[in-house]
Amino acid sequence: MKLFWTPASPFVRKVMVAAIECDLDHRLEVHPTYWPHEWATQTVDFDPQFIAANPVGRIPTLVTEDGIALPEANWICSYLDSLLETPRLFPLSGKPHWEMLRVLAIADGAIEAMILRRAETLRHPPERSEDFIGKQRARIARCLDEVEKSLPAFRESAVDMRHISIAIACSYMDFRYEADHWRNGRPVLAAWHERFSQRPSMTRTQPGETPQSPGRLHR
Amino acid sequence: MKLFWTPASPFVRKVMVAAIECDLDHRLEVHPTYWPHEWATQTVDFDPQFIAANPVGRIPTLVTEDGIALPEANWICSYLDSLLETPRLFPLSGKPHWEMLRVLAIADGAIEAMILRRAETLRHPPERSEDFIGKQRARIARCLDEVEKSLPAFRESAVDMRHISIAIACSYMDFRYEADHWRNGRPVLAAWHERFSQRPSMTRTQPGETPQSPGRLHR
Repeated sequence: MKLFWTPASPFVRKVMVAAIECDLDHRLEVHPTYWPHEWATQTVDFDPQFIAANPVGRIPTLVTEDGIALPEANWICSYLDSLLETPRLFPLSGKPHWEMLRVLAIADGAIEAMILRRAETLRHPPERSEDFIGKQRARIARCLDEVEKSLPAFRESAVDMRHISIAIACSYMDFRYEADHWRNGRPVLAAWHERFSQRPSMTRTQPGETPQSPGRLHR
Repeated sequence: MKLFWTPASPFVRKVMVAAIECDLDHRLEVHPTYWPHEWATQTVDFDPQFIAANPVGRIPTLVTEDGIALPEANWICSYLDSLLETPRLFPLSGKPHWEMLRVLAIADGAIEAMILRRAETLRHPPERSEDFIGKQRARIARCLDEVEKSLPAFRESAVDMRHISIAIACSYMDFRYEADHWRNGRPVLAAWHERFSQRPSMTRTQPGETPQSPGRLHR
């Protein structure tokens, strides 16, 4: 399987962590993509193979062994899960399944707000809106507060997509927005994240800065 | 079931059309929400019930009869589908299932770009970025071009989430971006959309302008 990848993207990291948790990472052929800072407001040069696979122009994108190009992180993870005899990432059914999706959607909402905030930060004044950054900060805070409340109900269960998304959301805060001190007022989440971050799936997928040009991809 | 709703949102419309296609719309209790134009860059006043249900602060949000608040349109639709004896919205399995999700993700990518473009249009200069609007226009065009190519393979099949998302994407273009003339160069999609738009699920869910204040919700 071919994965269009970049080292800074938390949604790409979801797929990498999920693949490792499913023992499927050895089947992923990683294709780096580069993203000049202009991506925040402009259409950047795309690898023709990538944009054919995903006309939305977003990563992660997985091309399966059957040649199907999947453009969305949760569906990629759900595809990986479908390759296992016993599902790990979406293991629940009935009410617990929907409760799980609720938490996952909230963790993803936080990650998406972090990416919108990042794109805004990359704008140059006067196009940068401090209001918009504030809106995304407030959204992130609301989502992490909700995770803090709901975590005790499932933190000890086997790792599923909820845990993966929450851990990556927190780690991306550390990567981009350390000054927000997200741990303040969220002791349950902070302690859980400390432990979860020691999993090989997390230590092996630490984020790195986004390559700005193809020349920097392979150094 | 309670659905937090607004008349202009294409993602809300997905849920409404899906509910009608599943004959489940009579079970939805619609809760209108209002969105002053400032939503584009600011945190707006939220109904406390709504923001408790979905800390991401986005519609649609469905509260199930079990009291689970689901914050994401496709998962809401998948939940509705799970209430049927025979699934209609996500009826496929194996390779066709993943091929279907690919098209759905591309249609959703177009809708998301339309909403990002809308939010940008609501910004006041000098914070409005014409580059950003151009980026989203290009993304929409790429996605609709891909739909034009892939549509013949499934346009005659029973209605599923693909058809619903594509139809709503096109209708939202008519609602917000008529001057783009999306039908130009896309005769297959245009002819199909013309027919699909006559379905009761579509005629009964025509978009309307977003209420700016609670006073305008119930006139």
